[in-house]
Amino acid sequence: MVEAVETMDGWYSLHDMRSVDWISWKLASEEEREEALASFHKLIEKWEKVEEGKNGSHALYTVVGQKADLMFMFLRPTMEELNELETELNKSKMAEFLIPEHSYVSIIELAKYRKSKDGVDPETLPEVQARLKPILPKWEHICFYPMNRRRIGEENWYTLESDARGKLLYEHSKTGRKYAGKVKQYITGSIGIDDWEWGVTLFAHDPLEFKKIVYEMRFDEASSRYGEFGYFFVGNILKKEAVAAFLHV
Amino acid sequence: MVEAVETMDGWYSLHDMRSVDWISWKLASEEEREEALASFHKLIEKWEKVEEGKNGSHALYTVVGQKADLMFMFLRPTMEELNELETELNKSKMAEFLIPEHSYVSIIELAKYRKSKDGVDPETLPEVQARLKPILPKWEHICFYPMNRRRIGEENWYTLESDARGKLLYEHSKTGRKYAGKVKQYITGSIGIDDWEWGVTLFAHDPLEFKKIVYEMRFDEASSRYGEFGYFFVGNILKKEAVAAFLHV
Amino acid sequence: MVEAVETMDGWYSLHDMRSVDWISWKLASEEEREEALASFHKLIEKWEKVEEGKNGSHALYTVVGQKADLMFMFLRPTMEELNELETELNKSKMAEFLIPEHSYVSIIELAKYRKSKDGVDPETLPEVQARLKPILPKWEHICFYPMNRRRIGEENWYTLESDARGKLLYEHSKTGRKYAGKVKQYITGSIGIDDWEWGVTLFAHDPLEFKKIVYEMRFDEASSRYGEFGYFFVGNILKKEAVAAFLHV
Amino acid sequence: MVEAVETMDGWYSLHDMRSVDWISWKLASEEEREEALASFHKLIEKWEKVEEGKNGSHALYTVVGQKADLMFMFLRPTMEELNELETELNKSKMAEFLIPEHSYVSIIELAKYRKSKDGVDPETLPEVQARLKPILPKWEHICFYPMNRRRIGEENWYTLESDARGKLLYEHSKTGRKYAGKVKQYITGSIGIDDWEWGVTLFAHDPLEFKKIVYEMRFDEASSRYGEFGYFFVGNILKKEAVAAFLHV
Amino acid sequence: MVEAVETMDGWYSLHDMRSVDWISWKLASEEEREEALASFHKLIEKWEKVEEGKNGSHALYTVVGQKADLMFMFLRPTMEELNELETELNKSKMAEFLIPEHSYVSIIELAKYRKSKDGVDPETLPEVQARLKPILPKWEHICFYPMNRRRIGEENWYTLESDARGKLLYEHSKTGRKYAGKVKQYITGSIGIDDWEWGVTLFAHDPLEFKKIVYEMRFDEASSRYGEFGYFFVGNILKKEAVAAFLHV
Repeated sequence: MVEAVETMDGWYSLHDMRSVDWISWKLASEEEREEALASFHKLIEKWEKVEEGKNGSHALYTVVGQKADLMFMFLRPTMEELNELETELNKSKMAEFLIPEHSYVSIIELAKYRKSKDGVDPETLPEVQARLKPILPKWEHICFYPMNRRRIGEENWYTLESDARGKLLYEHSKTGRKYAGKVKQYITGSIGIDDWEWGVTLFAHDPLEFKKIVYEMRFDEASSRYGEFGYFFVGNILKKEAVAAFLHV
Repeated sequence: MVEAVETMDGWYSLHDMRSVDWISWKLASEEEREEALASFHKLIEKWEKVEEGKNGSHALYTVVGQKADLMFMFLRPTMEELNELETELNKSKMAEFLIPEHSYVSIIELAKYRKSKDGVDPETLPEVQARLKPILPKWEHICFYPMNRRRIGEENWYTLESDARGKLLYEHSKTGRKYAGKVKQYITGSIGIDDWEWGVTLFAHDPLEFKKIVYEMRFDEASSRYGEFGYFFVGNILKKEAVAAFLHV
Repeated sequence: MVEAVETMDGWYSLHDMRSVDWISWKLASEEEREEALASFHKLIEKWEKVEEGKNGSHALYTVVGQKADLMFMFLRPTMEELNELETELNKSKMAEFLIPEHSYVSIIELAKYRKSKDGVDPETLPEVQARLKPILPKWEHICFYPMNRRRIGEENWYTLESDARGKLLYEHSKTGRKYAGKVKQYITGSIGIDDWEWGVTLFAHDPLEFKKIVYEMRFDEASSRYGEFGYFFVGNILKKEAVAAFLHV
Repeated sequence: MVEAVETMDGWYSLHDMRSVDWISWKLASEEEREEALASFHKLIEKWEKVEEGKNGSHALYTVVGQKADLMFMFLRPTMEELNELETELNKSKMAEFLIPEHSYVSIIELAKYRKSKDGVDPETLPEVQARLKPILPKWEHICFYPMNRRRIGEENWYTLESDARGKLLYEHSKTGRKYAGKVKQYITGSIGIDDWEWGVTLFAHDPLEFKKIVYEMRFDEASSRYGEFGYFFVGNILKKEAVAAFLHV
Repeated sequence: MVEAVETMDGWYSLHDMRSVDWISWKLASEEEREEALASFHKLIEKWEKVEEGKNGSHALYTVVGQKADLMFMFLRPTMEELNELETELNKSKMAEFLIPEHSYVSIIELAKYRKSKDGVDPETLPEVQARLKPILPKWEHICFYPMNRRRIGEENWYTLESDARGKLLYEHSKTGRKYAGKVKQYITGSIGIDDWEWGVTLFAHDPLEFKKIVYEMRFDEASSRYGEFGYFFVGNILKKEAVAAFLHV
């Protein structure tokens, strides 16, 4: 029997993509739009407080193409907090002009290859804790995609011995490390939580790096033989100060 | 020819996921919302009576992410009762503000590996009857997903000999048993009833356990080679006392 | 080259699933609802006349779960009659409150393994004619699902020799015969007509039998290696006398 | 390297399926409905003129089941004419009551196995030209389905040698020829044009022949090993004189 | 380990398909329609200025069939510009009558087989720069489709050695070159950006050439064994002068 990977798990994550209902937005009175914007700013400020207190983190980007107009990413210590936050957004005046397009629920995840290092459980290390409860970078671009590990005939990630998986992931991580400083990657696990096994969220200063890293990694055996991919969302940062201009009609 | 498994079957099950139509809900008058809430509480109390009388059971959770806002799970002795219950919900004032998102129809199922034990049909045992007609736990979190057993080329669950299937399931159950006290699992069969072969409903105090158990089980051969999975819903318990607050706008 | 099966074909079949638009239904005036109900009863009575005259048959069931609220099954001698019947339903007052959810077009089909029996074409036999133009039973429960025969690599039904197919189907039919009196099965062919190759409609007194028969049959090689399945609808009979109560709000 | 087939290509083809919005249609005033019907008749007469002038052809059928209510098939010498015709239909009063359900764009196609016959390019022959620019028959029934040739592992149509493909298609055509007088077949190519590789449009006097021919052909190796099929539309002819009755409410 | 291809990347690309909401368009007042048309012309003129300044390019075509009525293709130096342009279109009066149907985000891409040629990085060559930042041709017809390279068992593009891939692509390009002057092809990469790996945009004077080139290429091993295709959009050029006529009702 093959040994399962043990994971270290951090904050709960919600990716939430919505489109602006531009027709309703334009039909609304100036007053209603101001009320909606005010409600949105109030939420953003609330989220910023949470981030300042290191009790969570969030990101807000505009999405390119018709899949959505906005992508939120929220990190919180509990599933309940994600749910409250989502419900509060749904009840806000702003949400009356936003159409839900997609969401993804997952948990920040690190693989735990060694149960202890010098007698210390790695999960207790401050640097690991920081990676499990990260403050998301305010980089210019975001990319989100979910993925599975393949389980078809000979190409079955889950029947590979732990060593073989480790070796493939090590090769894969070497490709990733070439992009240090260019791409920041957050892996969130969603087996038992959402429809794919993992979510991958990348941040970059230059969106071309998303294409370069994912393309280069596709030639690694971990991806070429064992990676299954679906949809991709890409976006540009939407700073709080730019929200009003983005929505100005 | 391969021997089919015999099953023991209990209550009929309906998973029913709905989203709140927040815009209509906010547009409704205070009076209408109160009427809707009252209709909802009346239904919940009716369901509670059924549960008290051990004539069925139910669960109510809020769903995280955009797939739905509410997940109901209903157990009843007959398909007719499920249908009546669903129709009554559909006709309620509350339903005017709920958008159907998904449903799943199935039957509580236990595999019957031995036709008799000391001359007694296991199905007649009180402890088996209790598992076939369970009162659902009021634990903090729920996870629901459907699954199939694979039938592709060499990886065909249904052409495996009964012994081989039994051995794989026994290994699989050992993984499950590690989570005793952390995760409660209900298997409902839906071959001939709904689009997948089984539904799996998990309850946990800590939603991280959903990820841990499903991930660990994915390395068991029963899952790695023979399991096919689709979508997952996860949620937080919504107690009757919290319904008004959840819907307060 | 493999010999194709010859079929004997009977009445044309339309499965038609619709949801009640409960919100519109409740918004309608009492008068409008009465008009709709009257139009519905008039149609049912017209269909009953056809059935009495042995010029067709029909069934009406409520569907459990969100896939639909009503399932109609219609049998008629010609495709034109099906079309007229459907158009008449579409134009009825009742249809203003029904949302089309799914439909399936097919033809009652029997395989013709022997071209003649004692010099008689089996298609001319009264008992075969009765099976090709059946009056549907008014049993308590219905189950409908479409299916294909697999054509992938080694598992290709259509490259099997006629003898091999016949043997597999004979084994399969033995499983079916165990359910005599419990499950009635109607096979309708839809190759060249609708999206799957066959439709299977089952009637039962106890809906548990749907699960038992389909599960047991899945272990037959005809299903385990050559069957491809999609969606399943299950329902409870809706008698004419119960229509008003079902729709009462 | 495998030799590609050369094709002879004729008129451009648009299959256009629409549902009647019965609720809007009934809500419209008698006057509006008459205006819509008049606009529809005007279009039909325009199309008839084109057909009389041998500058195109068209067909109009009602569709059985919920996939659509109407199926149009249009043939025109250029893609621009198809586009104009479609836009004119979209702008018509009638279109205000029609819901687009599906469309398929393709080109009448004949395979050109021999580049010349007695020194003559077959494409220049009058009988070939007639088949490339056909006037569609006014037969009672229509069937439309798209298809691909498989490209999976050993079952790859596009890596078969030209001879092998030719042989398979020859066998296949022999099955087709058995239905001469019963089924008329039009092949339209859509590689590079629409989502499947070919469209197949069949006409018959008896719709049972659609099932018989497609079923029998499925046992030919060209279909059993290399054919991939999706959805099927079937319908009954809707003559100009019958349009008003079909739409009468 | 297999060597990844290095790419040269140019302008960012957005394909944006929309349908005209003909019913709303006809319901709008003459004044509103004029306002919408004026807003559309203003945008087109703005895009033309960008193109004149060689800071981007665009194309506008009508789409044949029901998938959409209009296809825009935009090229811009940055992802931010694409996003701004899209948002400006969304906020325009014209957009109130357009229904988003599909979009595709990608980046003009050329493979870089040689890192230097006579000591010169090919990416710095003017002819390469021109191909990376192209002014789109104003040819009569457009075809857009996305594609993947297959990764299934033995047919895995990403585990092929660089030489083997190069050879297959060279053969493939020879087929393409036969269509010089007839078909212009633009490859845009979208790995890590959108749901498929590449987008292919073809321009032609005669739309039949789309079918001919894609069909012929399908017999090349690069496509027959390694190409995966989804949907295709085809259209006719819509010149600025023809917009008013196209929209005239």
